[in-house]
Amino acid sequence: MTTQQLIDQIKIKKSFLCVGLDVDLNKIPKHLLELEDPIFEFNKAIIDATHDLTVSYKPNTAFYEAYGIKGWQSLQKTINYINENHPEIFTIADAKRGDIGNTSSMYAKAFFEDLNFDSVTVAPYMGKDSVEPFLAFDNKHTIMLALTSNEGAFDFQTLNVDGKELYKQVLETSKNWKNSENLMYVVGATKAEYFTEIRKIVPDSFLLVPGVGAQGGSLSEVCKYGMNANVGLLINSSRGIIYASNGTDFAEKAREEALKMQQKMESILK
Amino acid sequence: MTTQQLIDQIKIKKSFLCVGLDVDLNKIPKHLLELEDPIFEFNKAIIDATHDLTVSYKPNTAFYEAYGIKGWQSLQKTINYINENHPEIFTIADAKRGDIGNTSSMYAKAFFEDLNFDSVTVAPYMGKDSVEPFLAFDNKHTIMLALTSNEGAFDFQTLNVDGKELYKQVLETSKNWKNSENLMYVVGATKAEYFTEIRKIVPDSFLLVPGVGAQGGSLSEVCKYGMNANVGLLINSSRGIIYASNGTDFAEKAREEALKMQQKMESILK
Repeated sequence: MTTQQLIDQIKIKKSFLCVGLDVDLNKIPKHLLELEDPIFEFNKAIIDATHDLTVSYKPNTAFYEAYGIKGWQSLQKTINYINENHPEIFTIADAKRGDIGNTSSMYAKAFFEDLNFDSVTVAPYMGKDSVEPFLAFDNKHTIMLALTSNEGAFDFQTLNVDGKELYKQVLETSKNWKNSENLMYVVGATKAEYFTEIRKIVPDSFLLVPGVGAQGGSLSEVCKYGMNANVGLLINSSRGIIYASNGTDFAEKAREEALKMQQKMESILK
Repeated sequence: MTTQQLIDQIKIKKSFLCVGLDVDLNKIPKHLLELEDPIFEFNKAIIDATHDLTVSYKPNTAFYEAYGIKGWQSLQKTINYINENHPEIFTIADAKRGDIGNTSSMYAKAFFEDLNFDSVTVAPYMGKDSVEPFLAFDNKHTIMLALTSNEGAFDFQTLNVDGKELYKQVLETSKNWKNSENLMYVVGATKAEYFTEIRKIVPDSFLLVPGVGAQGGSLSEVCKYGMNANVGLLINSSRGIIYASNGTDFAEKAREEALKMQQKMESILK
């Protein structure tokens, strides 16, 4: 998917919502556990109930790997289901990968070719040659961690490096990498004022924003400081939507929560 | 496996070699491609030929994920084969994972419980709560990236943070995390002098050292500056051993290369 196609979808759906498919067997409705593939069945129901309200789905690979081969199969069935039924959806493999060059190429192959995701999240610590192999794929997007929404973000990301915080240096350096137009960035919603500074460095890039909702960030504040002319934001919500209910009405309740988010977004887009 | 058991194995085998199982279908002998699971068959032959010369095997997960479910099955068969036949071997899942707390717990479950590896590599960028979930497992080890052996290592890892390089800050900070005695570190062999500085910060920790051999680092230099009273080093070699030949004699040639490394190590241990 091209960036322009993503922007078009945001305008059509009046939504820049990303639904995180972080499926934990301990949290999904009990009646699904009797089915052959509870994780896929859960995702399928969530997708069927929310696909018109969201522009993106983001399975976090950890929740699938934890169940071994069965989990990897659920991930594959989920991405296939989205690609076949809703090809307009921007898919994100939240995998936070990164390794030396030839090894990163194998990860890129795994997520862009084998699973056919539109994008994958990567970690910056190993630098240029750990990220550029992902950037080499046309119409695929690499979403690099910049400032995350967890407590540990302040251990290293905000350390002072030659007068500026490390995450700002990460943003600046990455702009010089080959095919950097294929980069997006993860920026947590925990401190909305940070977006002003970030937009000075990457005015045009899409930002994937976790931490709105369950983790306490404010949608309107993030939009106030982070939005650009093409919207430029994908706001992720996982638990707040997919675990809105753990009864047989879980998909219906998920839709209600997604609709609330979409409506807020529609009013902001006006 | 406990750290003491690893140290004992190093003394018994007179080796601190780690063989990297980075299996690329384009590089393995052609005759294996006719078998049902060429990756596993390749690994099995390498393991059978080298297990008495090495204390550790390290599959890099990228090379398995690139082949989807089939690849994940090869990884599972490989770790099961090692655990069943050579339980004295210290196994490393080279996965470079890291995510927010509850998600890192899922990765820890994947590698420590589902696959039953002794250790996993992790990335430090997301800080304390992205690594501590791994450290919570008894007799499991978490090998955190400090200074890697690739070109991109100098993009961020060596930036000056309040008077010291970032990788040193990463080492120092991590010492304060809960169960930090379960930490080991990845330190590339590219500049052996760095080990002097690193040993001032983490004198007792095991260091996993890539970059000797194919990537140009010197074994004797690394040992000179990096060894401690318990050896404290695992020297990785991947391509130099497993791709020593791509004919039908590949396992035999791999053994020859592993033996050369083991003999050098034995003479250093004296």
